[in-house]
Amino acid sequence: MGAKTKRPHVVVVGAGFGGLRAVKALADAKVDITLVDARNHHTFQPLLYQVATAGLDVDEVCAAVRGIVSSQDNARAIQARMTSLDTARQVIELDTGQSLDFDHLVLALGAVTADFGVPGVAEHAFGLKSAADARQLRNHVLTCFEQAEADERARQRLTTVVLVGGGPTGVEMAGGLAELFDRVLRKDFRGLNIDEARVVLVEGSPDLLTAFDKSLRAKALNRLERFGVDVRLNTTVAGVGPSSVTFTDGTSVDAATVVWAAGVRANPLAAVLGFETGRGGRIVVDDQLRVPGHDNIYAIGDLAIDPDDALPQVAAVAVQGGDHVARCIRAAVDGSAVPKPFSYNDKGSMATIGRNSAVVELPNGLKLSGFAGWVAWLGLHLIMLIGFRNRANVLVNWAWNYLTYDRGSRVIVDVNDEAARRSV
Amino acid sequence: MGAKTKRPHVVVVGAGFGGLRAVKALADAKVDITLVDARNHHTFQPLLYQVATAGLDVDEVCAAVRGIVSSQDNARAIQARMTSLDTARQVIELDTGQSLDFDHLVLALGAVTADFGVPGVAEHAFGLKSAADARQLRNHVLTCFEQAEADERARQRLTTVVLVGGGPTGVEMAGGLAELFDRVLRKDFRGLNIDEARVVLVEGSPDLLTAFDKSLRAKALNRLERFGVDVRLNTTVAGVGPSSVTFTDGTSVDAATVVWAAGVRANPLAAVLGFETGRGGRIVVDDQLRVPGHDNIYAIGDLAIDPDDALPQVAAVAVQGGDHVARCIRAAVDGSAVPKPFSYNDKGSMATIGRNSAVVELPNGLKLSGFAGWVAWLGLHLIMLIGFRNRANVLVNWAWNYLTYDRGSRVIVDVNDEAARRSV
Repeated sequence: MGAKTKRPHVVVVGAGFGGLRAVKALADAKVDITLVDARNHHTFQPLLYQVATAGLDVDEVCAAVRGIVSSQDNARAIQARMTSLDTARQVIELDTGQSLDFDHLVLALGAVTADFGVPGVAEHAFGLKSAADARQLRNHVLTCFEQAEADERARQRLTTVVLVGGGPTGVEMAGGLAELFDRVLRKDFRGLNIDEARVVLVEGSPDLLTAFDKSLRAKALNRLERFGVDVRLNTTVAGVGPSSVTFTDGTSVDAATVVWAAGVRANPLAAVLGFETGRGGRIVVDDQLRVPGHDNIYAIGDLAIDPDDALPQVAAVAVQGGDHVARCIRAAVDGSAVPKPFSYNDKGSMATIGRNSAVVELPNGLKLSGFAGWVAWLGLHLIMLIGFRNRANVLVNWAWNYLTYDRGSRVIVDVNDEAARRSV
Repeated sequence: MGAKTKRPHVVVVGAGFGGLRAVKALADAKVDITLVDARNHHTFQPLLYQVATAGLDVDEVCAAVRGIVSSQDNARAIQARMTSLDTARQVIELDTGQSLDFDHLVLALGAVTADFGVPGVAEHAFGLKSAADARQLRNHVLTCFEQAEADERARQRLTTVVLVGGGPTGVEMAGGLAELFDRVLRKDFRGLNIDEARVVLVEGSPDLLTAFDKSLRAKALNRLERFGVDVRLNTTVAGVGPSSVTFTDGTSVDAATVVWAAGVRANPLAAVLGFETGRGGRIVVDDQLRVPGHDNIYAIGDLAIDPDDALPQVAAVAVQGGDHVARCIRAAVDGSAVPKPFSYNDKGSMATIGRNSAVVELPNGLKLSGFAGWVAWLGLHLIMLIGFRNRANVLVNWAWNYLTYDRGSRVIVDVNDEAARRSV
C-alpha cells in the first residue's frame, strides 16, 4: 500500500514524572519518540529526603532512563543536555553535538531550587533536588558529626542543621533528621550528647504545610515539636554564611549545615528559549499546555504555567500533563478529536513526619494523620516507585528501619576520597 | 575491692576484615577498644566488582563502622587517618588533631593497588579497592556508552574495556562486564552494535587464576571466552595512555577504560612507621603477628608478612589474623597462656565468572565449577556480608538480576554533576 512513510518524531526533553509519563502514554501511538535527559536516570524526588537522612540508598530512588524505555519499541533515550531550540526549523541542539529534528516537542525540564536572591544560599546551602544533592547532604551531616566528636569547641555548630522552608520537603527532612539523630546517631556517637544536636525548621509564614488544612498543620507542628525540632514560624532568612544563618529580625543560628527548601523556580533553560515566562520563570502555556503560537510545542509540569490556572509544582500535575500532551499528539497524528482543555484532577496531598506519622488530605475533605496517614503515605509511595526492583529494596530498607530503628545507609562514600581518585 | 583501675586500651587501625574481627573477638575482654578508620564504613571488597558492573548499589557493599561496633560496650569507632606512631610513648596521632595512647596496637591498614612502576597506570587506569573506585568505574563505563552512541568515530574505543590482571578480580570483572554488555546494555543502547563492544582481559602469566588447580583455570578461561571475553595470556602491559594500552610486544589496544587489577601493595603508611617491611611493602611480623621488638604492636592481613610463611592477601588471612591477635591481647591482659603461633587455616578459594558459574577449590581437593560452584559462592558471600540489611537487599538485587537478566544499578550519580554542586 505505497511506500513506508516516516513516522512523526516526538522529542521529549526531561525524564521526570511528566516527561516519562508522556513517553509511556505514547507507547502504542504511530510515532517515534526520543527522550532526552541530562542525567541517565529518573530521580524519584519525593524520597530524596530519605536518602539525605540515611534511610535509603541513592540508587533506590533512581531508575536508569534507558531501562525504563527499553521495552517500548517506539522510544529511545539519550543522555544529553538540550542547549538550544530552533522553532522555525523544528530542531533542538544537544551538548553532545547532536541535533534532533522534531515534529512534536514536549518540554518537561522541571524545576531547580530558587534562592530568591538571599545572599549566601548559592554558596553555602544545600539543595535537595537531585540524587547527588541528597548524597552530598548525607555525607556532609555525617562528616560534621564525626568532626563534632573530635572538636568540642565547634560541637554545637557542627551538630546543628537549619532547614529553611516549612513545606513538605522541610517538614519531611525535619522529621527524618530528628529520628536519625535520636534513634541512630545517639548510639553511633556515644562521645556526643545527642540531646544537644539541633534541627531548626524555619518558615516565613505563620504555618507549616500551608497547602494543608489548618487542623493538619497543627498536628504536623505538634509532632515535630515533640520530636524536638525547633520550629520557627514567621521567620525569614536574611543571609546564609559558611557556618551560620542570619534572620531578618537580626538573630542568627550557628549551623554547619543549612538546607534550602524554601522554593523552586523553573529550569533556567526556560529563560533562553525565547518563550514568554510567568511566575517562577515558568513557560506560559495555553489550556492545551501548548506554547502560544506553536501548535507542536508543549511544556508541562514544574516548567510550565497557565496564568489562568496556576497549578502547584508537584508530581501529580506533571504526570497528568504528560498524559494530556500525549492525547494531543495522538490527535494530531491520527486526526482524531482534539482533547478537552487540560484540567488538573487534584488527588490530595501528603507529607510524612517520621516514623508512624504523616498528614494526608484528600480533595473530598477526608483527612488522615498519625499512623493511618503514614500507612497511606507508605502504600502510595511504594506503588509510585518506578520498577519492581526499587520497590522491593525500598521495602526491605523500610521494614528494617521500622523494626530496628536503624538506618542502613549511613555510609560516607565520597568520590573525592583520596583513595578514589582516578589513579592507584 | 580497691579503686577501679583503668582498663588496657587497645587501638585497632583499619576497619577491614582483619581489624573488625579483632574488635569483635575482644568483645568480652577486659579492655577498651578504639577502632580507627579513614572512612566511616567497612567495605566488602569481594563484591566491589558487582558495584562496578551495576549489579549492586554502593551502599550494599558498605556498612557504617559505628553501626557495627555500636552494640559492643567496650568498643568505639572514630573516622580519622592515622598520621604517625610513637612506639616509645605508645601513642598514635590522627589527622583530626587527636592522639590516642595505646597499651596494645593492631595495625590492619590493608593494601592499595600497586602499579609496579608501569607508566600511566596512576593517571589513566581505574583501581577497584574502594566503594568510590567502584562507583567511579561504573559511572565511567556507562558514560562511555552514552558517548559512543553519539560519536560513531570514537565508538570502538569508547566501548572497549581492558582489564589488567587475571586473578579473581580481573576474572570476576570480565564475567560481570560481559554479562552487563550482553544482557543489559544491548537492550539499553539499541543505537550501538553491542557485539562490537569488547572486554579484553590481560594476564602476564600463561594462566588465569593461578591460585587455582589447572582444571579450574581451564574452565574459567573457557567460560570467559564463551562469554566473548578477549583473553590475552602471556601479555604484559608496557604503559597506559588516556585512550589506549600498550603491551611489551609492541601491540596496543584502544580503550577508553582500563582497569588495573594486576596486584596490590601494603598501605603506604607501612613505609613510614619505621618498621622493617618485606615483599610488597608489607610490615614484617613474627609468628605471633607481632612487629619484632614490640610485644604490644601487631600487624595483620594484607598489611603484614611473616617472611617464613608468606600468606596470600585475602580476606580469610586477615580474619584469622584478627582472631589471633585478639587471643594474644587477651592473654597479655589476663595473664593466661600465650596462644600457639599463628597458623593460617586455608578454607579454599573461589571466583565467580558471571551468571550460574563459579570455580571453587577446597583444601581437601574438592573442586566445584559451573552452577554448583556458583551456588556455593553465592551462599558464602551472603553469609559473609556484614549486617542483615545488606544481606536482604543484596539478595533482592541478586534475585532480580538472576530472574530478569537486568541490572538495577546502572545509574550515573556524579557529585560533580552540575546540579549537585553545593549551591542551588
